[in-house]
Amino acid sequence: MSMEIERKFLVADLPDLSGAEKAVVRQGYLTAPDDSTELRLRQKNDRFFLTLKGGGAMVRVEREAEITAEQFETFWPETDGRRVEKERFTGQLSDGRTFELDVFQGDLAPLQLVEVEFETEAEAMVYTPPDWFGEDVTADKRYKNKTMAINGVPT
Amino acid sequence: MSMEIERKFLVADLPDLSGAEKAVVRQGYLTAPDDSTELRLRQKNDRFFLTLKGGGAMVRVEREAEITAEQFETFWPETDGRRVEKERFTGQLSDGRTFELDVFQGDLAPLQLVEVEFETEAEAMVYTPPDWFGEDVTADKRYKNKTMAINGVPT
Repeated sequence: MSMEIERKFLVADLPDLSGAEKAVVRQGYLTAPDDSTELRLRQKNDRFFLTLKGGGAMVRVEREAEITAEQFETFWPETDGRRVEKERFTGQLSDGRTFELDVFQGDLAPLQLVEVEFETEAEAMVYTPPDWFGEDVTADKRYKNKTMAINGVPT
Repeated sequence: MSMEIERKFLVADLPDLSGAEKAVVRQGYLTAPDDSTELRLRQKNDRFFLTLKGGGAMVRVEREAEITAEQFETFWPETDGRRVEKERFTGQLSDGRTFELDVFQGDLAPLQLVEVEFETEAEAMVYTPPDWFGEDVTADKRYKNKTMAINGVPT
């Protein structure tokens, strides 16, 4: 099992992104939140994936297969109302850390979120974000992608 | 929309199947019966399919994509407990009609069911089955493949 130590922020001032790498990401759920199984379609640039997460409180099985664009498009319409579409910019902060900035599209526009990953919890706690970062929403579950797919942008 | 007019029977005496065409069929459900969406994996000989049936009482959307053996095998384990595996023999009766005989494998063995299709309801009603057919179970919903995938062979 892998644990990610991250902090997540709103964006106060979008920085110059000309040096960042851009990816187009869209993901949507074929199943509803109360269903016994979760099936997610995901596109990242020109690659497509189908991921199943099994039920089970303690251990959730995860199975993923790369699929074709055509297979993706066959099922994508059924994710209507349960989607997250975004442009993800990956770049470097002046302190050398990597940021991942999500600029949401579609129903979630114009939301922007930026994440920074840390090696240890101690590092994460003492971190001073750059000026262009906004409010810290790390602990706010309403900003999870899966939650926003159903509920939209927190108000 | 296509309607099939069929009658379904148990098998009293398995006939000589040397002239029949045999296919290996297995199908399993990734979703549970109460989920909002139905996702079914299906193999017929060396071809593989993923089929989604949407919720909705009046109109159920159906979307199907052919998938690879590898994609099939990635998700197949998650259909455990919700499977139908059978050999399907397609052959001709002495009256010229086509029969489809399912010889179930796995948990549903040794069940055998045979179906005959008709052009009209009138034809179906007056039909006299051959001697090797057993009890007529056309109206018995317990013999639907989807029901047996969950509940097993009717007792």
